[in-house]
Amino acid sequence: MNPAEIIRKKRSGEKLTRHEIEFLVKGFLDGGVADYQMSSFLMAVFFRGMDFEETTMLTDVMVHSGVVVDLSSIPGVKVDKHSTGGVGDKVSLILAPMVAACGVPVPMISGRSLGHTGGTLDKLESIPGFRTNLSLDEYRAAVAETGVAMIGQTSEIAPADRQLYALRDVTATVESIPLIAGSILSKKIAEGADALVLDVKIGRGAFMQSEQEAIRLAQTLIAVGKRFGKTTIGFLTDMNQPLGFAIGNWLEVVECIGCMKKNDVPDLMELTYVLGGAMVMLGGKVPTIEEGIELCREAIISGRTMKKFKEMVARQGGDVSYVERVERYRPSTNVVHIESPTSGDIDRIDAMELGFAAISLGAGRMRVDERIEPRAGIFLARKVGDTVSAGEILATLYTERAN
Amino acid sequence: MNPAEIIRKKRSGEKLTRHEIEFLVKGFLDGGVADYQMSSFLMAVFFRGMDFEETTMLTDVMVHSGVVVDLSSIPGVKVDKHSTGGVGDKVSLILAPMVAACGVPVPMISGRSLGHTGGTLDKLESIPGFRTNLSLDEYRAAVAETGVAMIGQTSEIAPADRQLYALRDVTATVESIPLIAGSILSKKIAEGADALVLDVKIGRGAFMQSEQEAIRLAQTLIAVGKRFGKTTIGFLTDMNQPLGFAIGNWLEVVECIGCMKKNDVPDLMELTYVLGGAMVMLGGKVPTIEEGIELCREAIISGRTMKKFKEMVARQGGDVSYVERVERYRPSTNVVHIESPTSGDIDRIDAMELGFAAISLGAGRMRVDERIEPRAGIFLARKVGDTVSAGEILATLYTERAN
Repeated sequence: MNPAEIIRKKRSGEKLTRHEIEFLVKGFLDGGVADYQMSSFLMAVFFRGMDFEETTMLTDVMVHSGVVVDLSSIPGVKVDKHSTGGVGDKVSLILAPMVAACGVPVPMISGRSLGHTGGTLDKLESIPGFRTNLSLDEYRAAVAETGVAMIGQTSEIAPADRQLYALRDVTATVESIPLIAGSILSKKIAEGADALVLDVKIGRGAFMQSEQEAIRLAQTLIAVGKRFGKTTIGFLTDMNQPLGFAIGNWLEVVECIGCMKKNDVPDLMELTYVLGGAMVMLGGKVPTIEEGIELCREAIISGRTMKKFKEMVARQGGDVSYVERVERYRPSTNVVHIESPTSGDIDRIDAMELGFAAISLGAGRMRVDERIEPRAGIFLARKVGDTVSAGEILATLYTERAN
Repeated sequence: MNPAEIIRKKRSGEKLTRHEIEFLVKGFLDGGVADYQMSSFLMAVFFRGMDFEETTMLTDVMVHSGVVVDLSSIPGVKVDKHSTGGVGDKVSLILAPMVAACGVPVPMISGRSLGHTGGTLDKLESIPGFRTNLSLDEYRAAVAETGVAMIGQTSEIAPADRQLYALRDVTATVESIPLIAGSILSKKIAEGADALVLDVKIGRGAFMQSEQEAIRLAQTLIAVGKRFGKTTIGFLTDMNQPLGFAIGNWLEVVECIGCMKKNDVPDLMELTYVLGGAMVMLGGKVPTIEEGIELCREAIISGRTMKKFKEMVARQGGDVSYVERVERYRPSTNVVHIESPTSGDIDRIDAMELGFAAISLGAGRMRVDERIEPRAGIFLARKVGDTVSAGEILATLYTERAN
């Protein structure tokens, strides 16, 4: 089999066989297919797409490039959530312990910040000592005993995805529905989840900026997930303005701790409850999402979510005293208030621009090797619909950088 | 400047600036742009194309990746020919000495066999001792003194094209008009020709199988060539059946020597005269192609073409005794006659299949590192339109391979 012939076939819009997809992906991992051939193939996929069957085969080949974690010895339906990522999207930090507090085990593998969107792992690691790099044994034990674990992709989980993602990132081949679907689902299937809730973001701060594309992605994820026996529910949610008020790793953790302590942040908690309700329903605890939402509310109000969060932080090596007293964290060196130059109503907030602004303060990275400053970020004082007077504070910037 | 951003721009169908094209091509040569980024870019160009201005800029950047040979000290308009390649296309071997015999200097840089089409360099090298790897100084001197030189692309001539072509070949990104135009013209401009005749082949044995694509390629080549001050004439010619009767390196040389000795091979000589007539006109010797054709006929009939060919062979190190007595060449070990299973008229001959058959006999290569057997090939006894009886010989195969 000749890599150039398979690339040519996809380039011409023909459908690939499983054997051909496997040849390319395995060859890419073992060196038989050069990275320059894989990237040319990925660009052909960007233009020609893949049908449902090809996407399923690609996902399957990626899943089996590594270990498939068996969580079947843990009682209950294990449910995970995946979000396509947005600005200020800190939902997972509240959601995972909340659902676990409802008795549904949550095995969660998350990603890092890249580009204008944040990453759950970087947020968690802003808690001193928190380890996201658990071994697969530690991960399994944490899900079994604490009911929740939040880790990063290990080298055993879908290694084909890791290598393909790194290549896509530098060759402008990220924005392809079959490639996104394969990447998301291969990790979720390999991590051992039984069911999945998807949060596909739409809008300026999201990855998919058109509604049509977001719908197609959600449909693909649901169809392919089902094919692997994973019940999958997808939500399309707005990402035109950031979720909540905080953007930046430790700032977001503090906002989440507030929410878990019942300081309601309406847009953030509304989304968290809906996703949580669906997870609790998929976990078999209640028959409807609405009843699931009720269970989740109780898990917050009762303080059980906060308790579960602290349990998770402790188990993964984090210093709980920072969670208990967030003021222990050394404040940012430079704090700048942004005042409104005029009076009026806030009509829109550009989430993507805020995401990039947060990066320039040190809260994110444009390249995988950049260091993140956990305290850096932006705290919004006002959001869309609010009325402000001239001179009123719109947002506060936190950074260690001098200018 | 970020390679991924430039790839993304082309992927979205936007027009690139000269600065961006230069950044990619130079970066590719010096390592700042990875080969996997270049191949992904090339695939984006395959799908999105390049407009006239982009194609011109790409060509210019490729030309200036190496040396531009200055032949201005040689009197006369220097004219070269380029063919997009076909099966049995041995025109250059007769054309170059014929046009030189008419007093028009011919500086010709040719290619090697790859895939089903043959390469002029491999044909020339089947003459024992013939050197196609002249240095640029030897090349200039040969054009000045003999009036003709036929060489391969040196490392100084358009190195960007060499590296890009090698990458395109293994990433299914060859068939793109702007990339083909850049590749052809960068070499022709760098070699020092003043004017150019193009032979764009159409049909089963050609590279461009559709007429529409071939016309677009010819138009692009003419427009870009003109932009560089090179008067360019393009012909679209049929490549459904092989040109002449011989396919295979030494077999083709023998057929050409026959033609230069006035053994007419109608389809081959018709094309050679038309291209030659255009070259002689571009060289300023006559005002029309028709008169150019007459000069070329005289150059064949008078024996001056044969004389010029021998002069060129001698100057480039070839053993002229093989040209004078072609029977000196050791005959092929295995000779197989293919007889017609039935009587009838020959309706069509699949040039591409014959090209691949010739490769399997040892006359060509599918990979750049394969060895060519100069004696191997196919000699057709009959062509389209001929009537044959059952048992009559259709073709003879020559090979050193056992089966």
